[in-house]
Amino acid sequence: MQDLALLTDLYEITMMQGYYQEGIAERRVVFDLFFRSPPFDGGLTIAAGLEQAIDYITQLRFREEDLNYLRKTGLFDEAFLRHLRGFRFAGHVDAVPEGSVVFPQEPLVRIQAGLLEAQLLESALLNIINFQTLIATKAARIVQAAQGDQVIEFGLRRAQGPDAAVWGARASYIAGCTATSNVLAGYRYGIPVRGTHAHSWVQAFPTELEAFQAYARAFPKNCLLLVDTYNVMKSGIPNALKVADTLRKDGHKFVGIRLDSGDLAYLSTWARKRLDEAGFSDATILASGDLDEYLIREIKNQGAAIDAWGVGTRLITAYDDPALGGVYKLVAKEIDGVLHPELKISENPAKITNPGIKQVARLYTSDGKRAVADLLMLHDEKLDTDAPLTIFHPDYTWKRKTLERFSCRPLLIPVIRDGQCVYSLPSLEQVRQYCQEELSSFSPEHRRLVNAHTYFVDLSLSLWQLKQDLLRQGGAHYQDTHPLA
Amino acid sequence: MQDLALLTDLYEITMMQGYYQEGIAERRVVFDLFFRSPPFDGGLTIAAGLEQAIDYITQLRFREEDLNYLRKTGLFDEAFLRHLRGFRFAGHVDAVPEGSVVFPQEPLVRIQAGLLEAQLLESALLNIINFQTLIATKAARIVQAAQGDQVIEFGLRRAQGPDAAVWGARASYIAGCTATSNVLAGYRYGIPVRGTHAHSWVQAFPTELEAFQAYARAFPKNCLLLVDTYNVMKSGIPNALKVADTLRKDGHKFVGIRLDSGDLAYLSTWARKRLDEAGFSDATILASGDLDEYLIREIKNQGAAIDAWGVGTRLITAYDDPALGGVYKLVAKEIDGVLHPELKISENPAKITNPGIKQVARLYTSDGKRAVADLLMLHDEKLDTDAPLTIFHPDYTWKRKTLERFSCRPLLIPVIRDGQCVYSLPSLEQVRQYCQEELSSFSPEHRRLVNAHTYFVDLSLSLWQLKQDLLRQGGAHYQDTHPLA
Repeated sequence: MQDLALLTDLYEITMMQGYYQEGIAERRVVFDLFFRSPPFDGGLTIAAGLEQAIDYITQLRFREEDLNYLRKTGLFDEAFLRHLRGFRFAGHVDAVPEGSVVFPQEPLVRIQAGLLEAQLLESALLNIINFQTLIATKAARIVQAAQGDQVIEFGLRRAQGPDAAVWGARASYIAGCTATSNVLAGYRYGIPVRGTHAHSWVQAFPTELEAFQAYARAFPKNCLLLVDTYNVMKSGIPNALKVADTLRKDGHKFVGIRLDSGDLAYLSTWARKRLDEAGFSDATILASGDLDEYLIREIKNQGAAIDAWGVGTRLITAYDDPALGGVYKLVAKEIDGVLHPELKISENPAKITNPGIKQVARLYTSDGKRAVADLLMLHDEKLDTDAPLTIFHPDYTWKRKTLERFSCRPLLIPVIRDGQCVYSLPSLEQVRQYCQEELSSFSPEHRRLVNAHTYFVDLSLSLWQLKQDLLRQGGAHYQDTHPLA
Repeated sequence: MQDLALLTDLYEITMMQGYYQEGIAERRVVFDLFFRSPPFDGGLTIAAGLEQAIDYITQLRFREEDLNYLRKTGLFDEAFLRHLRGFRFAGHVDAVPEGSVVFPQEPLVRIQAGLLEAQLLESALLNIINFQTLIATKAARIVQAAQGDQVIEFGLRRAQGPDAAVWGARASYIAGCTATSNVLAGYRYGIPVRGTHAHSWVQAFPTELEAFQAYARAFPKNCLLLVDTYNVMKSGIPNALKVADTLRKDGHKFVGIRLDSGDLAYLSTWARKRLDEAGFSDATILASGDLDEYLIREIKNQGAAIDAWGVGTRLITAYDDPALGGVYKLVAKEIDGVLHPELKISENPAKITNPGIKQVARLYTSDGKRAVADLLMLHDEKLDTDAPLTIFHPDYTWKRKTLERFSCRPLLIPVIRDGQCVYSLPSLEQVRQYCQEELSSFSPEHRRLVNAHTYFVDLSLSLWQLKQDLLRQGGAHYQDTHPLA
């Protein structure tokens, strides 16, 4: 991550030079990073990417070769390039911890900094947070569909490049996958790695039985055999059972089999019977092959006897919705030394931002166990948990609900202050554990894979009022962009 | 790329240890990397990724920390780890040059090496080639839809991680994009970079006009203004025209405007008229915002006056088909010192491989200008271009065609011999130029975005005969996997 200063869109740097030349580079601003709609049309989204983001922000430097390259573009002047040479991010960052459940409109990262430095972060932060949040969310859905079965991330060969494979494996692990096939992800993050052999192993030997026997010799304690190279029922399972028998006689536990094709429900129940009859009732049946949450649910509904799922392409690329549309929007700027809330107006109401420096309060039942609503509020508002709180839909304000008793928790926490990391990074295991706690604090209705109940994300009365005021002010010089207007 | 030895699936390394222990690590084998169906349901696919692949293969080393990590997994023994310490890829690689048009079943990369080393390459090679080929193909489609207009790659913020952004920008440039917004891709590969300002620039100033004036001060020679922050027709264009006028008076050329929302066809024609009336007929209109080949075609059909297209999310993630299903299959193995063709049989005919060490011959009209068919053949076959050649469909063999006169070209060329790169890497500009030549050698019917004519990819008679023979032999010990059989 040490040479990523140039991992940015050119316009960030042209704007930076413009701010510098206009003398407003140091003006304080606040940007929110958030998304507008949940991926996979789902209920819950899992935030991820913060660890890489912190690393990026705190190590951000322009090397001489970076500056030389910028000079060569002919767009930048020497005074500005000199300024970049001394660049350090010196602002504040607040963020939602990795593994948190988040919703549209909620800031995942909030940057408070000088205009120049805040602008620089936009493209790379979006790149990092968008992807990892997307994959963590997809993984959580797949793990949910597996209903307690192990889910192993198998996507390296179809991931969109090496970074996607490695960071995607990490995001998958956060969201509940139990292991990855990706050795580099295991090396870097300590994620458990899994894998045995491919069809090519079987093809490398004269017969399947010889291939299985050789594998058992090489890994007597980790013998999981891929049984579908030729024919699962007539060759794969009978050969695997012979090898399992030999292993047992030698005092080893036979780990199990993998099915990578065919009718997984039928073949797995057939295989389970054969394994049980032969006394291998604790042998695992691992299935793989173009799986996702919908297919796993379907195969389980068909009564499959599968204990573990290897999920590749559709997890690591978030196949059915491969981009999270996170954005980075100005929400406050300094005028005469004071931060003023800023509103981006659009004809499309979904694109109107929430102004000001905000906090997200998650409201729980009074025992703190069940999340009931999130409240976007101004960062210095206080919630009185001893008094009833009436929350309301920000558009359909007659839709309201009063919480007589509740508890609450702020989602955004301080991460960087004056450029220094003030956040004690949790271990990956802690992040993973936290993610499970987060998920279990939501009702089954909110967790559904399809047709999830819409979770309330409301605005505090103060924030709502501020937004209305700014909309009215802005409305005066904002005009309908409909071409026929 | 120097620490990517562990960028592999664990099973590659467990199989390697198995081969090593069985004494077959050095046995010569041949693997083909190919895909089975074209992405985007399209006609032509553009090969990409070879440069990174060569870098990966030739630099592949296990560092001490890699070996220590593998030791800690408890799966590997010391003799094998010692062997890995001295690992160098010492085999041969043949590949299709980047920028080539390729088709399903054609080897993009052919590895001939010892079993252990060939196995190690699988996961990383697939990761590299799958992604870059996918993005190059998507980019070619978008460039084609733009019909000669500039297409600029804008996808950094939605790319699946930093590598995807950078390598994706490179693949896009190969396939005809004219520039990228990604500065790191510009720095690394010399791709032209483009970009001016975002909505946040406009928001940083009290009014849009002041923002535009400031931008013109900062970049008088590169002033392209984003005009949709408030209202394109009532504010953005009128303000842009004022600034353009001032620039003209100061002797500068006004570059143009960018539209990022709204009815692009309507707004662009309206803007074109205003620009022309004001004497800025050479000002560019750049459009952006969730574009892809279908939307660009549609907007052009609506009569839009757009000169350049900024394409982000849907290009950089290959949004509608985000994974190329490339596979890596054993096609020959050494038995008693001789390489024997190997066939992977499957109940699914589409998954049956083509055996043996192969070459791909592209057959052209006799003037060499138009590609008419590809012929998968054994690598040592010779084609007599002076005699008529009858080609036939490999499944429906009664579908045949005789080429009376033709010319031909082998697609696979030597890239690595005995571990050494023997390929003089073309510059990125040469690759890009070659890709354009490749595309233009195909008929418009084969290039269509939808319902493209199927291009013939046939087997030579010798290869077809070999495959039939192996199928008959294999069929004897292969049995139907249908569960009810």
